[in-house]
Amino acid sequence: MTDTPIEQTYRPPLCDITILDLTHVLAGPYCSMILSDLGAKVIKVEQPGTGDDTRHFPPFRDGHSAYFATINRDKESIALNLKDDGDRAVFERLLAQVDVVMENYRPGVMERLGYGWDDLSERHPHLIYGAVSGFGHTGPDALRPAYDMVVQARGGVMSITGEKNREPVRVGASVGDIVAGMFLGHGLLAALYQREKTGEGQKVDVAMLDSQLAIMEHAIAITGETGIPPEPSGARHPSIAPFETYHTADGLMVIACGNDVLFAKLCEVIGKPQWATLPEFADNLSRCQNVMLLRRRIETVTLAHPREFWLNLLAAEGIPCAPIQNVAEAMEDPQILARNMVKHLPAPDGGAPFAAAGNPIKMDSIDDARQPQAAPLLDENRVAILDWLVQREA
Amino acid sequence: MTDTPIEQTYRPPLCDITILDLTHVLAGPYCSMILSDLGAKVIKVEQPGTGDDTRHFPPFRDGHSAYFATINRDKESIALNLKDDGDRAVFERLLAQVDVVMENYRPGVMERLGYGWDDLSERHPHLIYGAVSGFGHTGPDALRPAYDMVVQARGGVMSITGEKNREPVRVGASVGDIVAGMFLGHGLLAALYQREKTGEGQKVDVAMLDSQLAIMEHAIAITGETGIPPEPSGARHPSIAPFETYHTADGLMVIACGNDVLFAKLCEVIGKPQWATLPEFADNLSRCQNVMLLRRRIETVTLAHPREFWLNLLAAEGIPCAPIQNVAEAMEDPQILARNMVKHLPAPDGGAPFAAAGNPIKMDSIDDARQPQAAPLLDENRVAILDWLVQREA
Repeated sequence: MTDTPIEQTYRPPLCDITILDLTHVLAGPYCSMILSDLGAKVIKVEQPGTGDDTRHFPPFRDGHSAYFATINRDKESIALNLKDDGDRAVFERLLAQVDVVMENYRPGVMERLGYGWDDLSERHPHLIYGAVSGFGHTGPDALRPAYDMVVQARGGVMSITGEKNREPVRVGASVGDIVAGMFLGHGLLAALYQREKTGEGQKVDVAMLDSQLAIMEHAIAITGETGIPPEPSGARHPSIAPFETYHTADGLMVIACGNDVLFAKLCEVIGKPQWATLPEFADNLSRCQNVMLLRRRIETVTLAHPREFWLNLLAAEGIPCAPIQNVAEAMEDPQILARNMVKHLPAPDGGAPFAAAGNPIKMDSIDDARQPQAAPLLDENRVAILDWLVQREA
Repeated sequence: MTDTPIEQTYRPPLCDITILDLTHVLAGPYCSMILSDLGAKVIKVEQPGTGDDTRHFPPFRDGHSAYFATINRDKESIALNLKDDGDRAVFERLLAQVDVVMENYRPGVMERLGYGWDDLSERHPHLIYGAVSGFGHTGPDALRPAYDMVVQARGGVMSITGEKNREPVRVGASVGDIVAGMFLGHGLLAALYQREKTGEGQKVDVAMLDSQLAIMEHAIAITGETGIPPEPSGARHPSIAPFETYHTADGLMVIACGNDVLFAKLCEVIGKPQWATLPEFADNLSRCQNVMLLRRRIETVTLAHPREFWLNLLAAEGIPCAPIQNVAEAMEDPQILARNMVKHLPAPDGGAPFAAAGNPIKMDSIDDARQPQAAPLLDENRVAILDWLVQREA
């Protein structure tokens, strides 16, 4: 008998995949972060001297961007100037060995460098090519520049976010970039699966603007049927009540009663069982028509006790509810911590670690408790990458 | 010579994959919609009599939910009562033939039905099991019920969405559900890829709450470094200026100058080149400190002409900009239409089609112009599914 624990060996799904990642800022690097969390080796190709723009995004510590650190953990960096012959030679050797190449330039840039998909697919039929851009590689606005907020505005999500009769606001998370990166991730994984059958790669083209439209199922269904685009939804569900934020003695919480049974239970729990049978609250339609009155009545009760009191009471009865947590509170939430959703990334200088979100994809083949590697310094892994190339070429 | 066009035959990546989909409402069905867009056959298992809850979600036309129609296009429906012996026999025959089974019950429900992952993996080692739930299958709150807004509140995204000094608002799109469905999609695709190597399936467990934390890279980096959670970001970028909404003579637009060069160009274009050298606007930090002044100055100019005038002028100079479009405007946007991002789904009664978002993943192996099939009526495909089973078993 020994005290040594049995060590499980994990072989994550993409452990045999290498990604050559030319992307910068967010949509592309977010995609390669997910693929890295799934086990892929990610070689980040950066501009010599400056590197990824996000290396210069705040907050900084000792000159290192915490923002860059979170998105680029576990990746390797090599600085290559794709207009320099020596660097192009290295890049071309890399192309021959990797499975996926990713870029987020505007359409035409890769072609001008001689690395457009038509060229690449001829020389490297096994290669999978992922492009994420503001507006995609086709259509009248393909060449326009974009940022997260540009596509949030144009795609419609800002118009349904915010308070009625006030100006629209952006979604606080960068969904313009992130959702596009996630659609690209789906495309690349599907292409990897298909290559197992056909032996051939293909191109995946994802636009940030398209991706915004793709997440508005409800708003599109309503607009399509009524011709009237939905207004900003404020802090409540547009067609269910009670389903919004309520004040307590010490903070805001959400109560979400999706049906009459839950509403009756809520009335019971807050000591007002008679409300469930009032004509103005008898069914969801009535409750929606009297939603302001309903909120005021509920708040006369909820204001009397602190949030924690109500959340415990409601949760015990199975009524969906939650505190509105700020990001610091969310990062200390026991459920979040139990799921390894806050990781501490080593800082390049050996200082206090950077906080980052963990991997939300929990799979049998992935070690969820694994400690990620620090994001690389610019060009940090050049020698190791060249060594890897030599081994692969042998 | 004939006039017949050459017809390209598409074989989408997942054309040999079948998904047995027990999920309802949004997170799971959104995931299986993406996999269907990638070519998978999706067999939707529904509760006899009522079916998926979203069949009863507005807006309706002739008794059919437009909401249900958009998310469930191209799927097949069979009604099975998993507590009935005859239906269980059918379900078990299906389990033996499909590649993926998906569910979004609370943890423990599948176990009580005798279809927990431990049982299934023993009997069907090839099977991949996808679960999406509010809080995941582990942790202290695993059994709590959730809705989109519950995880938007608890995960922190509401706290950074909205206007400063006002109450937080929800994200108008259902990112609590949708992003979780997309992480599940990544996990299932990675598991399909890995099964090609190992021959074995595995379980993927995704929580809506985890998924919210995973999309807040910037907010987590800031909170981790400063200890201070970010405030709602309103309608501007939290650390870049000018990068927000501006009024014109007839509507709101976004202008996004990510650096000094773009700002100088903007000043030039709007006829105020001298602003670029004023000390209060000389660099991004100064512009952020004087952001209210900067906006008022810019609006003194932009209010003089309609939005379209400014967008044309700015776009011609490569300055990132966009109208804030409502959903109806977004659905008629020429770039959106050029990218096949609005599809018209046949209605079950042969009436006017339902509008839905197209597939944002453009791949060589997928026919982007394909017309989707209508969402199924409850149990519509029972006979065809049973026939398919017999063929597969032969």
